[in-house]
Amino acid sequence: MSSEAAAQPYATPPRSDRVRLRRKRERGTHEREAIDAILDEGLIAHLGIADEHGQPFVVPTLHARSGDVVYCHGSVASRTIKTLAGGAPACLTVSLIDGLVLARSAMHHSANYRSAMLLGTARLVEDHDEQLRAAEAIVEHIVPGRWGEVRPPSVLELRATAMLALPIDEASAKVRTGGPIDDEEDYSLPAWAGVIPLATRAGAPQPDARLAEGVPVPAHVSGYSRPPRPRT
Amino acid sequence: MSSEAAAQPYATPPRSDRVRLRRKRERGTHEREAIDAILDEGLIAHLGIADEHGQPFVVPTLHARSGDVVYCHGSVASRTIKTLAGGAPACLTVSLIDGLVLARSAMHHSANYRSAMLLGTARLVEDHDEQLRAAEAIVEHIVPGRWGEVRPPSVLELRATAMLALPIDEASAKVRTGGPIDDEEDYSLPAWAGVIPLATRAGAPQPDARLAEGVPVPAHVSGYSRPPRPRT
Repeated sequence: MSSEAAAQPYATPPRSDRVRLRRKRERGTHEREAIDAILDEGLIAHLGIADEHGQPFVVPTLHARSGDVVYCHGSVASRTIKTLAGGAPACLTVSLIDGLVLARSAMHHSANYRSAMLLGTARLVEDHDEQLRAAEAIVEHIVPGRWGEVRPPSVLELRATAMLALPIDEASAKVRTGGPIDDEEDYSLPAWAGVIPLATRAGAPQPDARLAEGVPVPAHVSGYSRPPRPRT
Repeated sequence: MSSEAAAQPYATPPRSDRVRLRRKRERGTHEREAIDAILDEGLIAHLGIADEHGQPFVVPTLHARSGDVVYCHGSVASRTIKTLAGGAPACLTVSLIDGLVLARSAMHHSANYRSAMLLGTARLVEDHDEQLRAAEAIVEHIVPGRWGEVRPPSVLELRATAMLALPIDEASAKVRTGGPIDDEEDYSLPAWAGVIPLATRAGAPQPDARLAEGVPVPAHVSGYSRPPRPRT
């Protein structure tokens, strides 16, 4: 039984030794298509920076891929954003959990997951048009179809927000799929084994208390799903 | 309208300046109860370490809280695990996304989330009994009720696995709840505004192809939910 992803390690070589896949290489890939799919489906990213003492900080953030960069944003007053904009080395990781893998033995329990990791240095977006495109990418990443329905950012709002672009360059993805892999002598044990699939589900939309009268629930809200349905 | 969490900043003071809440303090807390609840509900954590050049690496990992520590584990051959076991400063972050916040303007879009961050140095668990307790905590964290049904770890398995304990000491949590907060002049815009709630849902269990004959689906599998239902 092959329970691992059909990834082809090194079909695309690693961009650097820092993202070279070490452990469980059969789960890994450097293919852009696989990396982009994870970045696009994941609702949030975890962004890592380190301080001058080597202390890492990992913060969740909304993000969006646009071509060869991932945008994220924050207040210009935020410590994380200031550090990133100052050129500190960063790591951005997006992880999706697809299922729980229940084995017959404790130590073979696992999770089916897809994870993408980018290393690099963020660039502060200073061009007004690119700032707008980044804002659009982030809003559309969260709720496809939303951008055209809302008031666009003002000049003042963009001035108070730092938009950062992290290149998709030094990057890798890891994927686990399939059922448990038990030790041969454990397969006869009377324990249930298999996978509990997990997914993100949207509940009924909760209208804001101050919603203007007569505003209908748009399709991009009533039909919301993760991953997004393909646009028609 | 108060759309922020009812957190009481500084009811419990920060353990260090490094976890002192800076931005949007009204969303933050240092209360152990709030921090523990997030660590317990989150299925995975994102673990950050930095190399000697200050380059951070953020990797997803299964974890479990047990009292005042969070356990995680990995192969004794893994670079991340070796670095952590060697005493490198670490950051462990657990994030839950509860909903998408749709505002009338692009820049006020947000997410309702709960996030806990621990800073510290991991301790390599060397005591056999504590290794077993850590393995039990992780299996029970993923699937409550599972530990008693499966073959426990062997001495060899524990030898090949590094169990790490990160203290819950320098820690903070951030929580956003409620609807969008728009600029006053935007409330009359004809855009739908509100929250799309998000939750993790378990699908129908997928039995392993080599499941022993006559093994029923146990209640801890058929009734699986996230967050776990209270045990009876």
